[in-house]
Amino acid sequence: SRSINLAVIPGDGIGQEVVAQGLKVLSAVLPQDVKLETKEYDFGARRYHATGETLTDADLELLRQHDAILLGAIGDPSVPSGVLERGFLLKLRFAFDHHVNLRPSRLLPGVRTPLAGQPEIDFVVVREGTEGPYTGNGGTIRTGTPHAVATEVSLNTAFGIERVVRDAYARAQARPRKKLALVHKNNVLVHAGHLWTDIFNKVGEEFPEVTTEYMHVDAATIYLVTQPERFDVIVTDNLFGDIITDLAAAISGGIGVAASGNINPAGEFPSMFEPVHGSAPDIAGQGKADPSATVLSVALLLRHLGYEAEAARIEEAVSVDLAERVGKPARSTDEIGDALAVRVAG
Amino acid sequence: SRSINLAVIPGDGIGQEVVAQGLKVLSAVLPQDVKLETKEYDFGARRYHATGETLTDADLELLRQHDAILLGAIGDPSVPSGVLERGFLLKLRFAFDHHVNLRPSRLLPGVRTPLAGQPEIDFVVVREGTEGPYTGNGGTIRTGTPHAVATEVSLNTAFGIERVVRDAYARAQARPRKKLALVHKNNVLVHAGHLWTDIFNKVGEEFPEVTTEYMHVDAATIYLVTQPERFDVIVTDNLFGDIITDLAAAISGGIGVAASGNINPAGEFPSMFEPVHGSAPDIAGQGKADPSATVLSVALLLRHLGYEAEAARIEEAVSVDLAERVGKPARSTDEIGDALAVRVAG
Ligand SMILES: CC(C)[C@H](C(=O)O)[C@@H](O)C(=O)O
Ligand SMILES: CC(C)[C@H](C(=O)O)[C@@H](O)C(=O)O
Repeated sequence: SRSINLAVIPGDGIGQEVVAQGLKVLSAVLPQDVKLETKEYDFGARRYHATGETLTDADLELLRQHDAILLGAIGDPSVPSGVLERGFLLKLRFAFDHHVNLRPSRLLPGVRTPLAGQPEIDFVVVREGTEGPYTGNGGTIRTGTPHAVATEVSLNTAFGIERVVRDAYARAQARPRKKLALVHKNNVLVHAGHLWTDIFNKVGEEFPEVTTEYMHVDAATIYLVTQPERFDVIVTDNLFGDIITDLAAAISGGIGVAASGNINPAGEFPSMFEPVHGSAPDIAGQGKADPSATVLSVALLLRHLGYEAEAARIEEAVSVDLAERVGKPARSTDEIGDALAVRVAG
Repeated sequence: SRSINLAVIPGDGIGQEVVAQGLKVLSAVLPQDVKLETKEYDFGARRYHATGETLTDADLELLRQHDAILLGAIGDPSVPSGVLERGFLLKLRFAFDHHVNLRPSRLLPGVRTPLAGQPEIDFVVVREGTEGPYTGNGGTIRTGTPHAVATEVSLNTAFGIERVVRDAYARAQARPRKKLALVHKNNVLVHAGHLWTDIFNKVGEEFPEVTTEYMHVDAATIYLVTQPERFDVIVTDNLFGDIITDLAAAISGGIGVAASGNINPAGEFPSMFEPVHGSAPDIAGQGKADPSATVLSVALLLRHLGYEAEAARIEEAVSVDLAERVGKPARSTDEIGDALAVRVAG
């Protein structure tokens, strides 16, 4: 009989509330014969304040035992900027080699977009997750003096680029439109940019059916708001991916519905799924958070573990639920979770 | 008697056509007693193909004699990516220490935006122009092999940050709303991010009337499309500035109307003014290009040289011209230039 052994990290702020809905929907969608085991971990601001720890080697050892990880949100104003991001979120991505950071953008019917004319939006960004300017490489000298100098080093390897580029080609190949865009800034960041471009072109020879284009990151932000329908699959560097996926989320319904997967495709380590939004301390504990992004992240998790039909059922349920909201009074986090659980079970 | 000794660089593609209109409007707006001298330079793709040169030391010596520089656009598909950007555009910014890259965004009446509901947009981005990942620092080893590694180094100095931050505070102080946002990614790029944040906070003590906020660059892209009215002045790093100013241009009427100044505030070197758009080879020579961005760049140039009334007259003329376009047949580059010249002279 089948089983899913899931690590659950509710985290901070609204993380608690939205993860509860994610688990509710997950339980409801799974067939009877799949045994779901969950273990909760208390990472985030409370643990940091209590122990000074963000993510220890022992923690990683425990997390490693799981099939996948579901995360709500990590971050709180009481913790200095960078501590939990670098000490937990990025540490986990690097430790578990989550090199494919998958962020789909679909503007679902009835969902509001800040763009005029309700454009067709249905693309996915494959963001590199373990290199670029995210490696922590760099430093500061003469801190606090008028002569301070700080550096940030972007590290890019053929190994790291090729695997994520190949993953993106395979995803493009599997989609009806079969289009792939490389987003970078190869006219200025020439060293990294040429390496990305060369590998992108070379791997492309293995995928003759995929139509490709290259776009500078600045131009990509223009096209995302003027012609979002032109995108199918985008592959890009860690930092550019961070920036354009927030914009992508904004135009396709907002971070309330944006899901993401931090994936280790070969399965050497458990992959981690989380909403794109943060912990939103201003609305935490009030039942105001939209759990849709977390529920859609559960769908990505299920797809990753091979439960394609269940993933599709969740996505369909969220789509119908969003469409039915139009003109209705707002529901609580819990009510939305209940409605989705009923719908996927049905 | 007063005089302006202007270096004119039409450049490639539509650069030629739009610069001609910029000069037409400049001549028309200047008072009789101001002597305008212009000298044209042939930088760009043709010069590069003919001589292999992009910008020599002798060229820089000549350009230095001028009071300011007006540029159309540089870049052509026949030249490998990066050659003209690094060899001309960036070389000029660095050689003439253009550390304040000024990019105003105003959504003028009647101008189309991809955003729903015609929001109020009136902010200016002060982008650092001489540091960050734009310094060319970095390299590649094992090029062409599966073991290639490429780096890009972002260089940030207290000296470089402080001067641009102070410039941005002064601009915010001079505007009615007196708001300044620092855009960075200090939770990930902690070395550079903390240096920027510390200096931003420290310089802020000199400007108690200015209200400040900090925003991550990814979040900034969300706010630019969901709440653009919240911005007044933004100060940011070279690369983040590159990205968000293209987005800012897109939401406030497109790159057809986006002007920019590459400014050396102390006047040790001539400042350079140019439209944000590129050379658009696909429409070059057809009279289809909108010269408004170049004409608005001429306004920034005049303001920089102390001709505030003339700058304001140009901005007003462009604003009226854009509003009057609604529902009318398209005019040629030349016709728009003529109309603007008549209007500013009037
Ligand atoms: C919180 C931060 C470290 C993170 C990132 O920059 O990757 C976030 O913005 C994201 O996109 O997941
Ligand atoms: C052409 C390129 C070098 C330039 C930049 O990246 O600064 C352009 O995008 C700009 O914004 O002026």
